[in-house]
Amino acid sequence: MTFEAAAIVREKTEQAVEILKEKDVDLWITFVRETSHVKDPVLDLILGFDLTWTSALMIHQSGARVAIVGRYDVPNVERLGAYDRVIGYDAVFQQPLLAEIDALRPRQIAVNYSESDPAADGLTYGMFRVLSRALAATPYADRLVSAEAVIAALRGRKTASEIQLIKTAVERTEEVLAQLYPQMRPGVADTEIADFLHNFLTENGYSAAWDWDYCPVVTVGPDAAAGHAMPSGLRIKPGNLVQVDFGISRYGFVSDLQRTWYVRPAGETALPEAIQHAWDATTVALEAGRAALKPGVRGWEVDAAARRALVEAGYPEYMHAFGHHIGRMAHDGATVLGPRWERYGSSVEGVIEVGNVFAIELGVAVSGHGYIGREENVVITATGAEYLGRPQKGLWIV
Amino acid sequence: MTFEAAAIVREKTEQAVEILKEKDVDLWITFVRETSHVKDPVLDLILGFDLTWTSALMIHQSGARVAIVGRYDVPNVERLGAYDRVIGYDAVFQQPLLAEIDALRPRQIAVNYSESDPAADGLTYGMFRVLSRALAATPYADRLVSAEAVIAALRGRKTASEIQLIKTAVERTEEVLAQLYPQMRPGVADTEIADFLHNFLTENGYSAAWDWDYCPVVTVGPDAAAGHAMPSGLRIKPGNLVQVDFGISRYGFVSDLQRTWYVRPAGETALPEAIQHAWDATTVALEAGRAALKPGVRGWEVDAAARRALVEAGYPEYMHAFGHHIGRMAHDGATVLGPRWERYGSSVEGVIEVGNVFAIELGVAVSGHGYIGREENVVITATGAEYLGRPQKGLWIV
Repeated sequence: MTFEAAAIVREKTEQAVEILKEKDVDLWITFVRETSHVKDPVLDLILGFDLTWTSALMIHQSGARVAIVGRYDVPNVERLGAYDRVIGYDAVFQQPLLAEIDALRPRQIAVNYSESDPAADGLTYGMFRVLSRALAATPYADRLVSAEAVIAALRGRKTASEIQLIKTAVERTEEVLAQLYPQMRPGVADTEIADFLHNFLTENGYSAAWDWDYCPVVTVGPDAAAGHAMPSGLRIKPGNLVQVDFGISRYGFVSDLQRTWYVRPAGETALPEAIQHAWDATTVALEAGRAALKPGVRGWEVDAAARRALVEAGYPEYMHAFGHHIGRMAHDGATVLGPRWERYGSSVEGVIEVGNVFAIELGVAVSGHGYIGREENVVITATGAEYLGRPQKGLWIV
Repeated sequence: MTFEAAAIVREKTEQAVEILKEKDVDLWITFVRETSHVKDPVLDLILGFDLTWTSALMIHQSGARVAIVGRYDVPNVERLGAYDRVIGYDAVFQQPLLAEIDALRPRQIAVNYSESDPAADGLTYGMFRVLSRALAATPYADRLVSAEAVIAALRGRKTASEIQLIKTAVERTEEVLAQLYPQMRPGVADTEIADFLHNFLTENGYSAAWDWDYCPVVTVGPDAAAGHAMPSGLRIKPGNLVQVDFGISRYGFVSDLQRTWYVRPAGETALPEAIQHAWDATTVALEAGRAALKPGVRGWEVDAAARRALVEAGYPEYMHAFGHHIGRMAHDGATVLGPRWERYGSSVEGVIEVGNVFAIELGVAVSGHGYIGREENVVITATGAEYLGRPQKGLWIV
């Protein structure tokens, strides 16, 4: 773990104390074990490495930060410097846990579960049962509450150092996407484009921002599968649109961008009307969504603005959300800028805050040519959504 | 995803059907979403890539294998070929889920939670609530059971192709550990040894078998922290024992080995008596544990044999388990070869089976010199535990 990474973790645990005060939640416990198996997504924010035995990271609104971990994990947690007290144990976990809770006398104990926000749902059902059993004979048995609001704020409100790291990830991604020009010619397969970007990741020591197998997604022409499909060997033909959805993870922070190329057939002098019209409609819709994206607005309202603009331009609704947080993850939890569909649950009811960083995206299919995909990353300031990096201004014609 | 990786996933989903028959469990549902956030550890076995929207992977003892996934994930799951039917959805998940369950009329629905086995505890508490709510008005509301026995068998009973992949990972690890000889000299820091092994991983496209930050663990001399401590810049001195605990992940399968060197001071002609005695005691204890490790025996019985041998040789008990499964993970869940301590729960009551692959380990501190750590990987056959690779026969003296 680098010095910088540890400093960001300390910064986030301090921010957590402020959020607990604001939400008036007494105690927040992240309760985990063998995090190489199941890693609570909160751990990246408040610890930054794996724990082995059953462990509790406790943050109290008084400012107290206590870690109870297996003895072999003690040196790492002590060196991190984010917890005032690090309590190691050998055989019995329950006794130090109950002693610490008793000392803090919390009115509520927030734990990491959420029906709507996967990033706030790191407590497993087995561990919930272990914790419930441990608390069964105490006054705290019925004081467990969801930490989703705490986690959404902590994850969503990026600090200056987090925003800088995301911005650099975006810039690096833009650089390599610009290098794809020579690949965008007839006969080149989607797998070759994916290999090029994978090599870039490996050479630079970066990771894929999401599952390696479909980061990038490369959508070649009208016959490609949509969405998260892995490259399949489909080759570029003249007249194809080629869309690339790609992001990197660098020093623990990601980018998530889409770019679209048009491979002009020999002799074609003007861009086909259908493509130009579709491109312009995506621009209008993207900007309509971005204009609606500012502090105080709810997630679904932003989606509605973009969705309406696209439909008014004569195109079908996109079948996904307009936007999502990015940060530690490409889908960074908390408020989703999506429609009020069942599967988005309450995630689209959240309110936009200063310091949030979103990927905003939409696209349309153009019959006989392929898919135009638009995706940019923005940071929320007091006045609205500012682009991180340089958004794609026009279709890239090869 | 490579062809070979997909073939192993298909093999494991077929094995799962046999295990459901054997355990007489009707239906097993792996219920997940946004697996880049929280990945159910079972997914590596029965899918092999991430899913985005709420998804259910359903395996029935009749042989039926059905996947319900978001529309954008459909092509990847279809291409995998492990599920007979792949049902995509857009907005509403609950309706196809209930329809499929109704068609199968299960007496039990096994889901992935366990108080004792982290590898069988991938269902989050939030997702458990979502599922319980979906089933609330159906006859299946009270038919949820733990899948821990199913998962333990599926994960623990390695197929021939899985054993071969682990064996190769062990061999590659032994090769690079043997190359550490020139590093084992006075003045070299633990961080330099870690860098050497990290470079090996990067150059070969392997991953660390556990958290990169403490894979390897390098224990230099008597002043190092024990356990999972990250390298801290401690330098080798003459007379130090240096222990390295390291594993690689190659094509999704891991190794987990320890090796110990002794850096002899100039002019010393015979190995100090205390070191020789400790080395011999660890050999006796390791072999006592290995002799007890055979099909039908319980996890704690194996630990007890090794632990007793070490104590009888005059050394303190090691403060961890004697062994753990390895496979997809360095701590691969299921039966732990550990003592009956509270924190191991029922994991040490499990029974050893043919096809299991374990790391077995123990160690002792030698006053003034450092730590002797022993760890080897073994596969269980009908007659006992066979070494994978070549175990360390004697202390490596530099």
